[in-house]
Amino acid sequence: MFLTLEGGDAAGKTTQAVALERWLVERGRTVVRTREPGGTELGAEIRNLLLHGGHVAPRAEALLYAADRAHHVATVVRPALERGDVVVQDRYLDSSVAYQGAGRVLDPEEVRGLSTWATEGLLPDLTILLDVDPVEARARRGGRAAEDRLEAEQDDFHARVRAAFLALAAASPERFVVVDGARPAEVVAADVRAAVEPRLER
Amino acid sequence: MFLTLEGGDAAGKTTQAVALERWLVERGRTVVRTREPGGTELGAEIRNLLLHGGHVAPRAEALLYAADRAHHVATVVRPALERGDVVVQDRYLDSSVAYQGAGRVLDPEEVRGLSTWATEGLLPDLTILLDVDPVEARARRGGRAAEDRLEAEQDDFHARVRAAFLALAAASPERFVVVDGARPAEVVAADVRAAVEPRLER
Repeated sequence: MFLTLEGGDAAGKTTQAVALERWLVERGRTVVRTREPGGTELGAEIRNLLLHGGHVAPRAEALLYAADRAHHVATVVRPALERGDVVVQDRYLDSSVAYQGAGRVLDPEEVRGLSTWATEGLLPDLTILLDVDPVEARARRGGRAAEDRLEAEQDDFHARVRAAFLALAAASPERFVVVDGARPAEVVAADVRAAVEPRLER
Repeated sequence: MFLTLEGGDAAGKTTQAVALERWLVERGRTVVRTREPGGTELGAEIRNLLLHGGHVAPRAEALLYAADRAHHVATVVRPALERGDVVVQDRYLDSSVAYQGAGRVLDPEEVRGLSTWATEGLLPDLTILLDVDPVEARARRGGRAAEDRLEAEQDDFHARVRAAFLALAAASPERFVVVDGARPAEVVAADVRAAVEPRLER
């Protein structure tokens, strides 16, 4: 069983992945908790190129994310699924599609095509979208409202990321469950478990 | 004008690229001589991942080559062509297609599709294929004939690379010129110049 957690920055994905892993282990499942980008040794090097290097041309960036994904799926995710483990993963292809859609540089469907090729079409059994209003999230964390142009642009970008994720969820309701991530972590975790449980019993 | 040199390992591509650059400069052209993989700072890091790292899943490898190509074309090749320079390049997309065809792991046409996306369809004005029989080339360089199974497999692989390059040249005769690379370097260089010269005058 392949479970992915998606959402904007600071939506609580890591917290929820840890809680979900603990719950699954208590129920006797073997869990591989992992993430993209950077879920393999090669991927960590690719992630460094992406996040800490200089300018990367947009198509090169998309291809590097796809390369990380291809290696991660081939060497971590598929072997785990073949062993019968549950894979709990922080970000997968929906992140690539949503961020590209929000960034408005590349065609999100072309970027999806790269991921489809990279993974030989592997889709999650369930994707949990942790939905949080990014401006509200910033305010809750003690940040100010957007005060300058750059901050306002960033708020606008994160609002577009959120809208793109919600559109992906609406387009694939059989795969997605949208969970309101603005509530306390334990309340969110209960909703996440409620989404996972019926699929475990199948 | 975008010129690429293709061929197997040790076909003499670097020697011919240097000679061609010198000749073009003498004729008053500004030349950017470059290569793939590794023709940019980012590309050098990608090349290190590819050539000196551990196992890389086949699709990840193809995507890393495409990422290197995307960045190189966007930041080196296209800017040079827009300035009116001549680009002389050691290896381009034909190498990816020929090596994948010879390796028999991925579909070469899918690999071509990645490069087409990576480069927004940029094709060379002229591709010079330096054709050398790989077994003969090894013998000329003082190597022995294949003596063990691994060497024989390598010879077989390089023979398939050669055949794949010749098939690509046959399929696009308007873009390719095949030059017999087994002759002395200065004789080969004269043939290379003869292929380039009419295109310069257009």
